[in-house]
Amino acid sequence: MVRPATIIEAPRLSAKLGAKVILASETFQTTGSFKFRAAFHLASHVPEKLIIAASSGNFGQALACACSMLGKASIIVMPATSVKVKIDAVREYGGAVELVDVRVKSRAERLAEIAAQHPEAYVASAYDDPLVIEGNASLGRELATLNYTFDSVLVPIGGGGLAAGFVKGICESGKGIAIIGAEPSLGNDAARSLRAGFVVANETEPDTIADGARTLKLGRLNWGILRGGLQGIIEVGEREIEEGTRLLFELANLKAEPTGALSVGALLSEPERFRNRTVCCVISGGNVDPALYAEIISRVSC
Amino acid sequence: MVRPATIIEAPRLSAKLGAKVILASETFQTTGSFKFRAAFHLASHVPEKLIIAASSGNFGQALACACSMLGKASIIVMPATSVKVKIDAVREYGGAVELVDVRVKSRAERLAEIAAQHPEAYVASAYDDPLVIEGNASLGRELATLNYTFDSVLVPIGGGGLAAGFVKGICESGKGIAIIGAEPSLGNDAARSLRAGFVVANETEPDTIADGARTLKLGRLNWGILRGGLQGIIEVGEREIEEGTRLLFELANLKAEPTGALSVGALLSEPERFRNRTVCCVISGGNVDPALYAEIISRVSC
Repeated sequence: MVRPATIIEAPRLSAKLGAKVILASETFQTTGSFKFRAAFHLASHVPEKLIIAASSGNFGQALACACSMLGKASIIVMPATSVKVKIDAVREYGGAVELVDVRVKSRAERLAEIAAQHPEAYVASAYDDPLVIEGNASLGRELATLNYTFDSVLVPIGGGGLAAGFVKGICESGKGIAIIGAEPSLGNDAARSLRAGFVVANETEPDTIADGARTLKLGRLNWGILRGGLQGIIEVGEREIEEGTRLLFELANLKAEPTGALSVGALLSEPERFRNRTVCCVISGGNVDPALYAEIISRVSC
Repeated sequence: MVRPATIIEAPRLSAKLGAKVILASETFQTTGSFKFRAAFHLASHVPEKLIIAASSGNFGQALACACSMLGKASIIVMPATSVKVKIDAVREYGGAVELVDVRVKSRAERLAEIAAQHPEAYVASAYDDPLVIEGNASLGRELATLNYTFDSVLVPIGGGGLAAGFVKGICESGKGIAIIGAEPSLGNDAARSLRAGFVVANETEPDTIADGARTLKLGRLNWGILRGGLQGIIEVGEREIEEGTRLLFELANLKAEPTGALSVGALLSEPERFRNRTVCCVISGGNVDPALYAEIISRVSC
């Protein structure tokens, strides 16, 4: 069910970035993002036959698909402003979609209402759940078995579920690989949390193009793992996120969503730090609105 | 050096097309297309230190890269109208580019002139050479070892080098898989050749969006293999080529060039023929001009 990450050596991208870049892409994962690892692990380990979650996209698709595969039902609460391709995909995978007008009611409130109507259901967090972290850990274990000696691995950070799982997986493998987070500057709560020594939250949902990282703060469990497990977090500007997405298209033939390109954006932000090093960039997903993507790839290089 | 094809199960694409579709993608091959298989095999098997070829793009990139890897030199003759990304790529891989204004002089004439200036060089055909066919045969052998039972494999056809190599590779494996060509209707010389029983040529270079298939006729060696080795050729309209490209983007997260999407276009052209069958679509390459690609993915589904 869970497909291994697609490993791509990208010599033209490497030449451009001045580092030996190896891509670990989850864009061909079932449902097009790493979220399926967590969703499938979770859905196959809880006894409930109905699972409810709030998700603006990738976790919703992944959970809907995992539940369908396992003969379970799912309800996904999504903002009414979600891009159409993501809503369509959840429905196609067999999930029931509940749209919520977030100007009137928060996703959390609507989720609580639906949960109250379905006491028999399991309510899943998209990122802060031991089963989610364990599901994502499989990616770390996978990369640890590859025949590469990575100086660093760059991992996108939103709620921190991927990075925490990744740290856990690498840790269990016993390999000492430096893991560095890549987070949008516009929503740099995780970087500020590392500096502060406690969880800091964004005041509002950050308006970054990396829509998978529009989270208010790190999950509690994730923070417990990340505070000691990361070698740092690189804050990536919007321009570098877009340029990362574009370079993956142009120089590696890889369709990535902006959140997935955060890791390449981090390399663009701090090129000297990685000069001539062997760096694994985790590309977390590939589901992106066609109009937005067309706009990004049509821009001229910066 | 030669990377195995990336095998992608595409459930959403399968649902859309009504067949179980497995993609065998060469978009992550070294230099972004299957042509590297042929180029590397050729460049490592001829004794000459300089190799000259005429190519509008993918073979040129592949040959330039293979020669650089092997410490050899290359000269690639390209039409002055070639898209910039393809010219840049050849140069980046270390090839010397000779642009020719095809309104004044044909590529073949210019190639002959350059070959006369370099009697020590090997002049390589992009598709009609035993070493090219042998290099491409590795893809057929690879697919024959997969744990799938394919009812059919759909392979793009331009000059016929990929299809001929593919037939040879499958044949050597001893597996009986039906191989079907996918050719643009606008340049249907191969389909007409199969019907006629001899090689038929297009009168002019066909003006198809599938620029890798803008060939006048099948190579002689390829014809010898294809006339008995194919279960037929599907002629694919421009609209289906574009829609195949778009569907690969939308439903499989795969960036393909239009020539690479011919196989999916063939499924769109004859859906009933493949209904509920297990079909392998060979995606031959991913190198496409960003502006053209942005236009294709922005169109509304037909």
